Amino acid sequence: MSRIVIVYHSGYGHTKKVAEAVLAGIIESGAEARLMMPVGEMDDASWAELAAADTIIFGAPTYMGGPSADFKKFADASSKAWFTQTWKDKIAAGFTNSATMNGGKFSTIQYFVTLAMQHSMIWAGTGMMPSNTKAATPRNDLNYVGGFTGLLTQSPADASPEEAPPAGDLETARVAGVTARWRAGAR
Amino acid sequence: MSRIVIVYHSGYGHTKKVAEAVLAGIIESGAEARLMMPVGEMDDASWAELAAADTIIFGAPTYMGGPSADFKKFADASSKAWFTQTWKDKIAAGFTNSATMNGGKFSTIQYFVTLAMQHSMIWAGTGMMPSNTKAATPRNDLNYVGGFTGLLTQSPADASPEEAPPAGDLETARVAGVTARWRAGAR
Amino acid sequence: MSRIVIVYHSGYGHTKKVAEAVLAGIIESGAEARLMMPVGEMDDASWAELAAADTIIFGAPTYMGGPSADFKKFADASSKAWFTQTWKDKIAAGFTNSATMNGGKFSTIQYFVTLAMQHSMIWAGTGMMPSNTKAATPRNDLNYVGGFTGLLTQSPADASPEEAPPAGDLETARVAGVTARWRAGAR
Amino acid sequence: MSRIVIVYHSGYGHTKKVAEAVLAGIIESGAEARLMMPVGEMDDASWAELAAADTIIFGAPTYMGGPSADFKKFADASSKAWFTQTWKDKIAAGFTNSATMNGGKFSTIQYFVTLAMQHSMIWAGTGMMPSNTKAATPRNDLNYVGGFTGLLTQSPADASPEEAPPAGDLETARVAGVTARWRAGAR
Repeated sequence: MSRIVIVYHSGYGHTKKVAEAVLAGIIESGAEARLMMPVGEMDDASWAELAAADTIIFGAPTYMGGPSADFKKFADASSKAWFTQTWKDKIAAGFTNSATMNGGKFSTIQYFVTLAMQHSMIWAGTGMMPSNTKAATPRNDLNYVGGFTGLLTQSPADASPEEAPPAGDLETARVAGVTARWRAGAR
Repeated sequence: MSRIVIVYHSGYGHTKKVAEAVLAGIIESGAEARLMMPVGEMDDASWAELAAADTIIFGAPTYMGGPSADFKKFADASSKAWFTQTWKDKIAAGFTNSATMNGGKFSTIQYFVTLAMQHSMIWAGTGMMPSNTKAATPRNDLNYVGGFTGLLTQSPADASPEEAPPAGDLETARVAGVTARWRAGAR
Repeated sequence: MSRIVIVYHSGYGHTKKVAEAVLAGIIESGAEARLMMPVGEMDDASWAELAAADTIIFGAPTYMGGPSADFKKFADASSKAWFTQTWKDKIAAGFTNSATMNGGKFSTIQYFVTLAMQHSMIWAGTGMMPSNTKAATPRNDLNYVGGFTGLLTQSPADASPEEAPPAGDLETARVAGVTARWRAGAR
Repeated sequence: MSRIVIVYHSGYGHTKKVAEAVLAGIIESGAEARLMMPVGEMDDASWAELAAADTIIFGAPTYMGGPSADFKKFADASSKAWFTQTWKDKIAAGFTNSATMNGGKFSTIQYFVTLAMQHSMIWAGTGMMPSNTKAATPRNDLNYVGGFTGLLTQSPADASPEEAPPAGDLETARVAGVTARWRAGAR
């Protein structure tokens, strides 16, 4: 069974909510998954678990136009895995949340891609069409924000994680499916 | 008086609408400005006018995650001005429109910055805060889409240029002001 | 057998040389591949061939900080395939050449990724470590330029395609292998 | 007199060497400048000094495809200055160093631009042409690496800061000149 690890940082709970939605969707689709928070020091067991995963999904809030410093600290620490190319040929995907529709969300996802490529991973986007091409599109439609490379969610600054972002487990099925197909091809 | 040229391509009229709003705002603020469409062959007079400008504003729709091919054709042709560094120290700014909130809009603006930097220009963003940090933010608020590096506008695919994007002359005053200050500093 | 199509534009022959090296490497590794030049109008047969491919590799010179306008014209025309998501789940990869070590090469590759993601493709990078981490690294080492997301090559402006870039078929084996594994997983 | 602050993080001394070269060049050109290291907690005096500066230059090594986590921590903490738009209309510029010619250097500079634009700053690139367009270009030529948006330097992993990167004070004069002109225009 495919093993998927979602490595994320969340500052105020909104990104955590997205991570949990992604997790629920993956499990529902029949793959094995778990959340990992890279805040503070990661121990050897954490790195071993990442080394054993088929897919690693990166998640972080967009702060000041890029992934949060807590996530970047994790990314920098992954240089050890980079040096040995331990994550080579794993599937990678990502998601980010911020208070604006655009802001630096695209920048954060671009960074995730760059990180994954240094690790020689294979990148899978959302596989979704955008929803908001029609004037009457409601805000809570699937992919209203219009992310392709990664899942983009938006949470107003005055909204609690219970209120926002809107249900964002959309990328889930694709990543699980991609992982399963990629894993099957290796046999 | 500051001379500002807005070089833009528009496929269906939405980007043209933004260009005209930017133009109106610049003129209102007391600077001299005009629109230039780089579709087809630019003649020597067009390039001479760009060479004489204080500020060049780039505008293009985002097609398939980047500036339209018609705009890129203009950018490639500017290699002659690049080679002689004719645009060095001019102010640059940009805007883009597409059907989604995010999509590749950030990618298009990033390209404009990269282009401007090859030309040794100075980049001025929107100077605006985002509007949509509150849950009750109406769609037609200033900078709802959340652009900082450049002006981002969104037009539903089924909306005519009369209907969309919402009034987008927001960047105007800043670029005109930046140009005036930069011009004054050169005396 | 995996079918790989390399869609590229070349202005002065350097990018063509890279395309041919990538082609040779793919064929050597046992996959089926061919070159396609998207300059001018693509006909229905061209688009049908892309629709039937397992993998599409994008190649273009970097002009003024991004892919050449001729390539962008092809990308814009692919909006028809995007609308029907015809390229969904295909593998994508890319390469670019320019006269400088850095310049906008990374920008061009980032654009290829953004394009691929709109098409819901899966992105495979070079899977290579950089060569030039040692002071004595010769210029003609593998991956001297240091590309991860895509293959980056550099050709001095005064060098003919026979002279430059240095042998650049490096990405080949990885893309062919990724395609084969991905194809096998779909059975 | 123009006040320029160079805020940088350096892991092994190579980026520090670049920062010092930039500092020396600014002072030589007649402006006032100083270095600031944002590692650890910045105190109120540090933020006040940044608030009083005409120009802020960002510097960081490129780690795993982006600015080091220590720099990102500083960037995240600048959200307070962002909220009040304290840095609005200041000039911004940047530099980065890494072991490869390309790697993520462009990504780091792109991030610096995105950060500066959120702060409503004005971005000034290097204003330099690339050197390595000729086959016989020596490695230690000005702008061999080919940076436009920001200063890019490369240091082999086995080279000490005394040995690498090659003299990199190239951006200096431009930033000091841009600052002076911008400052003069505000009178």
